[in-house]
Amino acid sequence: MDQLEMKKIAARAALKYVKPDTIVGVGSGSTVNCFIEALGEMREEIKGAVAASKKSEELLKAQGIEVFSANDVSSLDIYVDGADEITPHKAMIKGGGAALTREKIVASLAKTFICIVDSSKQVDVLGSTFPLPVEVIPMARSQVARKLVSLGGSPEYREGVTTDNGNVILDVHNFKILNPVEMEKELNNVAGVVTNGIFALNPANIVIIGTPDGAKVIE
Amino acid sequence: MDQLEMKKIAARAALKYVKPDTIVGVGSGSTVNCFIEALGEMREEIKGAVAASKKSEELLKAQGIEVFSANDVSSLDIYVDGADEITPHKAMIKGGGAALTREKIVASLAKTFICIVDSSKQVDVLGSTFPLPVEVIPMARSQVARKLVSLGGSPEYREGVTTDNGNVILDVHNFKILNPVEMEKELNNVAGVVTNGIFALNPANIVIIGTPDGAKVIE
Repeated sequence: MDQLEMKKIAARAALKYVKPDTIVGVGSGSTVNCFIEALGEMREEIKGAVAASKKSEELLKAQGIEVFSANDVSSLDIYVDGADEITPHKAMIKGGGAALTREKIVASLAKTFICIVDSSKQVDVLGSTFPLPVEVIPMARSQVARKLVSLGGSPEYREGVTTDNGNVILDVHNFKILNPVEMEKELNNVAGVVTNGIFALNPANIVIIGTPDGAKVIE
Repeated sequence: MDQLEMKKIAARAALKYVKPDTIVGVGSGSTVNCFIEALGEMREEIKGAVAASKKSEELLKAQGIEVFSANDVSSLDIYVDGADEITPHKAMIKGGGAALTREKIVASLAKTFICIVDSSKQVDVLGSTFPLPVEVIPMARSQVARKLVSLGGSPEYREGVTTDNGNVILDVHNFKILNPVEMEKELNNVAGVVTNGIFALNPANIVIIGTPDGAKVIE
């Protein structure tokens, strides 16, 4: 079974957590694209969605689902998003698609974060297979890179990428994150860092893993 | 003696900390404008400056001082800036001019932060006289405001203001900050907050207060 099929299995299994008459928080990325397609079947039952990227917003609208601004809602029942890596403690690395800031904002509105992944995303230690994305104010790019080196990482400027917020991305390679909560806080306190791709202060609540044997749910 | 005269006294006293052949970090605001004017006399002795706002950049250039990007320097000997409030522990509130993010970035490059103020800026507790500015990603404005209310403050949207980074400012009124270091960290960890106006993790090192009796220096 290919990776896309496993993503579709995880995405479809997330539908059962969508309650009627609610606004659904929707992340971004290839697994979320599968979720948006499945969510189209429920367009008459839900009020709409809040999207974490312009791409997701377009796909939701194409499914006939109304898209609300994050400023229009005071809370969300669920937020459904993928991850680049996830640990057994449900801490994640996100940001491969450069939407980490908006993803963190919409996720923080939700009571329940549902993470949908294929099994290749499971790791014991964050940073094992995927570099950590950090969104940075452009004028602080050099000094934040030096700080990341001092913390043990190898930051690489993501060429040609500007985030939806007008900032740049540094991808930190060779950076094993043994204590995700502490490292998320430490990076948030570096001047010039807008958001870092560690999602540990507000981890996933439910993980749905697409496998050849069906969806495996960890609550 | 009026307030402007006291600002000029503090600004002029800061000149003695400027070393020849260095690049000087320069903040923004009315007291810094006095400093830039005084610094013009040293234009032949220094290499140039890094500016924390577009306004300061223009004023430096008008004085014939070369302006470098923060990305062009690996560190600065000194950073000179004003404050909206400063405590005896040299923690500050800054951001009345909406330049807090760039000010924090340039300040973090410097070995020594020299704060120049008139005596009206001295307080025992941050938040006593001045609201705390918080720079926020526009789509997170409502949820960050709710978080600030839950922390005890009264956030007010600064109408018509967009920062140099394309974000909005919430001014938090009635917000006495008893532990500036902890509150600075807590606000940095709120999703959607780019920067908060508490400067306590990286406080001033030298404070120069303009008074009718001359400059009072606290090292």
